[in-house]
Amino acid sequence: MTEDTIAAIATALGEGSIAVVRVSGPEAIPVVAKLFKSKENIENVVTHTVHYGWIVDDRTGNTLDEVLVTVMRGPRSFTAEDVVEISTHGGIVAVKSVLELILRSGARLAEPGEFTKRAFLNGRIDLAQAEAVIDLIRSKSDRAFHVARRQAQGGLSNQIIPMRQQLIELLAHVEVNIDYPEHDVEEVTASIIRTHCGTILSQVEQLLVRANEGKILREGIVTVIVGRPNAGKSSLLNALARDNKAIVTDIPGTTRDIVEESVSLSGIPLRLLDTAGIRETSDIVERIGVERSHEALNDADLTLLVLNHHEALHEDERKLLHQLKDRTVIIVVNKIDLPGMLDMAEVEQLYSNDQIVYLSAKDASGIEQLEQAVSRLFFSGSVDAGDLTYVSNARHINLLYQAKQSLEDAIAATHDGIPIDLIQIDIAASWEALGGILGDAAGDSLLDQIFSQFCLGK
Amino acid sequence: MTEDTIAAIATALGEGSIAVVRVSGPEAIPVVAKLFKSKENIENVVTHTVHYGWIVDDRTGNTLDEVLVTVMRGPRSFTAEDVVEISTHGGIVAVKSVLELILRSGARLAEPGEFTKRAFLNGRIDLAQAEAVIDLIRSKSDRAFHVARRQAQGGLSNQIIPMRQQLIELLAHVEVNIDYPEHDVEEVTASIIRTHCGTILSQVEQLLVRANEGKILREGIVTVIVGRPNAGKSSLLNALARDNKAIVTDIPGTTRDIVEESVSLSGIPLRLLDTAGIRETSDIVERIGVERSHEALNDADLTLLVLNHHEALHEDERKLLHQLKDRTVIIVVNKIDLPGMLDMAEVEQLYSNDQIVYLSAKDASGIEQLEQAVSRLFFSGSVDAGDLTYVSNARHINLLYQAKQSLEDAIAATHDGIPIDLIQIDIAASWEALGGILGDAAGDSLLDQIFSQFCLGK
Repeated sequence: MTEDTIAAIATALGEGSIAVVRVSGPEAIPVVAKLFKSKENIENVVTHTVHYGWIVDDRTGNTLDEVLVTVMRGPRSFTAEDVVEISTHGGIVAVKSVLELILRSGARLAEPGEFTKRAFLNGRIDLAQAEAVIDLIRSKSDRAFHVARRQAQGGLSNQIIPMRQQLIELLAHVEVNIDYPEHDVEEVTASIIRTHCGTILSQVEQLLVRANEGKILREGIVTVIVGRPNAGKSSLLNALARDNKAIVTDIPGTTRDIVEESVSLSGIPLRLLDTAGIRETSDIVERIGVERSHEALNDADLTLLVLNHHEALHEDERKLLHQLKDRTVIIVVNKIDLPGMLDMAEVEQLYSNDQIVYLSAKDASGIEQLEQAVSRLFFSGSVDAGDLTYVSNARHINLLYQAKQSLEDAIAATHDGIPIDLIQIDIAASWEALGGILGDAAGDSLLDQIFSQFCLGK
Repeated sequence: MTEDTIAAIATALGEGSIAVVRVSGPEAIPVVAKLFKSKENIENVVTHTVHYGWIVDDRTGNTLDEVLVTVMRGPRSFTAEDVVEISTHGGIVAVKSVLELILRSGARLAEPGEFTKRAFLNGRIDLAQAEAVIDLIRSKSDRAFHVARRQAQGGLSNQIIPMRQQLIELLAHVEVNIDYPEHDVEEVTASIIRTHCGTILSQVEQLLVRANEGKILREGIVTVIVGRPNAGKSSLLNALARDNKAIVTDIPGTTRDIVEESVSLSGIPLRLLDTAGIRETSDIVERIGVERSHEALNDADLTLLVLNHHEALHEDERKLLHQLKDRTVIIVVNKIDLPGMLDMAEVEQLYSNDQIVYLSAKDASGIEQLEQAVSRLFFSGSVDAGDLTYVSNARHINLLYQAKQSLEDAIAATHDGIPIDLIQIDIAASWEALGGILGDAAGDSLLDQIFSQFCLGK
């Protein structure tokens, strides 16, 4: 289907032990063979074998790097085409010079997502699976990763495909009855449509129920921490970061950026907004009044208001409790290792027990309670990414809503005595909307838009 | 020799299409086999083959990721031990969870450089080659990479080994003559010592001549750009960065940090000091007087003073020309596309023609002249990393100086009539110093120190 050969760097750029250039397409093996000095000629080797040798510039004779070359012949490869992976020394220079040589020798630089796009175009995976691939790479927590992995494995597709099958069968049934219209048959058909569309509708609705949760697992809960200077915001941040460190940064080299943008509360990703402004000022109420802080609060999915268990409620805090009342808030009563001086009666008047968490950020105790409170607020029941399919992609959610609307229209139409051949159009529309998730008949512009979000080399 | 099995992430951490966990040691294959669900059992597969499957947590039954597993049995591997590489989805989560599972299943986290250290301890490479591996990864320019690659291939070792062989033969010869001392023989022996030590001394000296150049290729020329605000410092910076971009950053995703810390002037790495302070101030002379800027200038290997061809010499510039006179300076006369208003007589009184470069940073013309001027200042003759061995490692340079001293002592001793058995000690010392480069009899603490500079996973 595709005719040219593409190449890109497949590993993250930076200091590492190895880096990989991936080449895919009909000429992948001959292009690399020209440049690869080894005992074996990789044009003749068995698929899925690894070969040691050197990448040598065929024009200058210069050796670029000592490499391992892996040959995977299509269709048993990521793209379902012939794929060659060249494992070079890490860092930037080696992998870059090898890529440049490959590009000069007949391959073209792959567009972002083009490898995955080819896997889709060659029919190895459907569009929903392809879209999950980028989520896999971008995921910031274990659970987000599992949601994406399930979808990449076909978790969503496996639910969509039978729904579409049912709709096709329903359409066939209706078609027969249009050709032989009798009053009885028409009534029976309407009833069949109601039953089948009703079943599928409830399946669609089930997927949509968890869509928001899926989005949160994918994108994280945008969180702002507020509180008076001595309440322990920084300690809470550190306690959360420590928790996160156990998950992300026990590996030296993980950049601090990742920690700063996202901490993981036992698998639920929190994206902490930059609340430096709020954190550093001594007069929080004044600051909260400042437009920028207001904006930060407005953008937030969740506000954590930290109170000091060891001090009486301050006037500032009283104001904050009222100001934040209508938001999604968790009141974090910190420093419970110290004697209690805080009168909780006032807090409990405004907030339910579910929203109040007692902890000691200093020794990171009580963080589980905070996790449970977050779960309660954002997830229906427990968070269990392992077993459930979470629809997290805005495009999929949109298509599910379209399918839902068409199915509801079809059912309503049967009640309103609208002719079957018009109802057929609604059923066909729902079939198409669901097909859009799988990439059925997806146009070039949609595909370009989807795959341009990918990183290079995937 | 080594008994346990080690594992680490081998690719750079960050957003990429794939990431690789490397496992090495006697249990590498069984440890991974326990966790790898595939059609084949990798304990039975042929070496250097790739297998598709899933990493599954054997305790929970949870699938962690879809992976490709490469099996390379020792001694045909990087460490000369059994090595398994697991290629996971890119990003952080997949590779981290796979690594954690591997570590829980019987491997231990590798120390920085431990894979390379094992390659050395297992006799696959010598210490000079091992040390070059980290230079390969860290190299910031093509030429620095080639210098390191040559050393990794044994370029330096291949020069050291014959010198040591000659010294051993000389020692054997001397030994014979000590056992049969006669006056004639002693005189002949002294003459032989002078000849042989002289030959090796000149080889050592040749290596040392290029040591500084090697260091520069490896570490870059620390460079400060100064000049009046309108002289075109930023344009020059951009012109250099553009040149560099062609080398480093035509690949999306390369971080800006790399560009900022190091630009490559046709292969010669310039490390531009943060001269923001100097650049932004309107009164450079005043700024130059500021201690911090002075420090920046003092740290620099090279100062580029940018003058405006289209303006008369400013009093500030006149002062700078005098202040910088004794430094390594190149005078960059910028804006030669505009009519000349600058009287060069004053400049030429203070600086030689070799130090003056005319260019137009705006259209990046004349950058080659700047490159040539840098080459002249820092390299004896042309920079040709391809053919020459550059000693760039401080440890190696130090050992070469030790060898040089011992050889000189030996030669001097023959003239002073010192007994042959004492001269023997000097010869042995030079043999040992050269052996240190290859890692001959290197102690644990030295090895620890060398390999601790590595990144994880190498």
